[in-house]
Amino acid sequence: MFSPLIDELINALRILPGVGPKSAQRMALHLLERDKPGAAKLASSLQQAIEHVGRCKLCRTLTEQDICATCTNPQRDSRLLCVVETPADVLAIEQAGNYSGRYFVLLGHLSPIDGIGPEDIGIDVLLERLQNEHIEELILATNPTIEGEATAHYLAEQAKRLEVRVSRIAHGVPLGGELEYIDGGTLAHAFNSRQGL
Amino acid sequence: MFSPLIDELINALRILPGVGPKSAQRMALHLLERDKPGAAKLASSLQQAIEHVGRCKLCRTLTEQDICATCTNPQRDSRLLCVVETPADVLAIEQAGNYSGRYFVLLGHLSPIDGIGPEDIGIDVLLERLQNEHIEELILATNPTIEGEATAHYLAEQAKRLEVRVSRIAHGVPLGGELEYIDGGTLAHAFNSRQGL
Repeated sequence: MFSPLIDELINALRILPGVGPKSAQRMALHLLERDKPGAAKLASSLQQAIEHVGRCKLCRTLTEQDICATCTNPQRDSRLLCVVETPADVLAIEQAGNYSGRYFVLLGHLSPIDGIGPEDIGIDVLLERLQNEHIEELILATNPTIEGEATAHYLAEQAKRLEVRVSRIAHGVPLGGELEYIDGGTLAHAFNSRQGL
Repeated sequence: MFSPLIDELINALRILPGVGPKSAQRMALHLLERDKPGAAKLASSLQQAIEHVGRCKLCRTLTEQDICATCTNPQRDSRLLCVVETPADVLAIEQAGNYSGRYFVLLGHLSPIDGIGPEDIGIDVLLERLQNEHIEELILATNPTIEGEATAHYLAEQAKRLEVRVSRIAHGVPLGGELEYIDGGTLAHAFNSRQGL
């Protein structure tokens, strides 16, 4: 409908998660009509990030360095290692702000149905670290989904064999949540995992 | 929180309309983790569009040519000229698919309070076209807002002075709309503008 370059830009914007044809069109026209400097900035940031951002060689999170800032920070407790599924999970935990150990990012979860085994999500690398480094506690923070739970279970078995202490983050009713609106599964879990006062 | 390049990308994505900090983060991680080729395509489309897309010299819509495809198309009726506020409006009318004339894009509306007068939205250029070209009808399709109505009113006065026929697109209850949910202003307008059957 528009000229080819504009159509191409609209299509390119549709790869962004949550952006459909109408939003992509609105974004393209906004950038071209009102914010060409912003668009140029976006193009160069994308280019830079594509070229330079890779995986941390230790924890596998996204970073432009060989080893990320968390892994090299001497103030982080190297005896604690928290296992998460994605770099976004690292960010969420960092924003909560009370964890001072290090991370290991699986970049996925075990999923035999999709052919994803332990090696595909770096569990071999993780077990090697458990053997070679002085890690006192492995904190499992995979998602509370079927695959996340299975992954946590598998990791717990392996870590126990290496005699490393393992823990799983607590699941239950979120703070500020109202019981009325909490799903049955969570509520049942909260009852089963109740703690003495 | 992330490494500098990723933070920069997240900030750059926030210039997109409707994208807040959380969506920008989700977009950046999605691109870097799962769709680097798509991100590269987006960067180059942005670059291309910024460099080459400008205004059509005749109708002022966005195009990468000097004169856009609608203005050069000999099958469009050059006797009809439709005035709209933005390139997105041109697209909306084209998608409706029953208008075969040409366009003039104001790229805004009269707004004395913001210091936007007739020359700022190209009305001088439009009046020149009305004088020099054989235009039989000027169709005013500015938005039905206060500023859009004022702009339409001003244009109607000027066009009448040049003895060009002027029309305004109809306003009223949209097709498929339910009276129950239509705002009072629209409904009042629909009654005042009722037509004999």
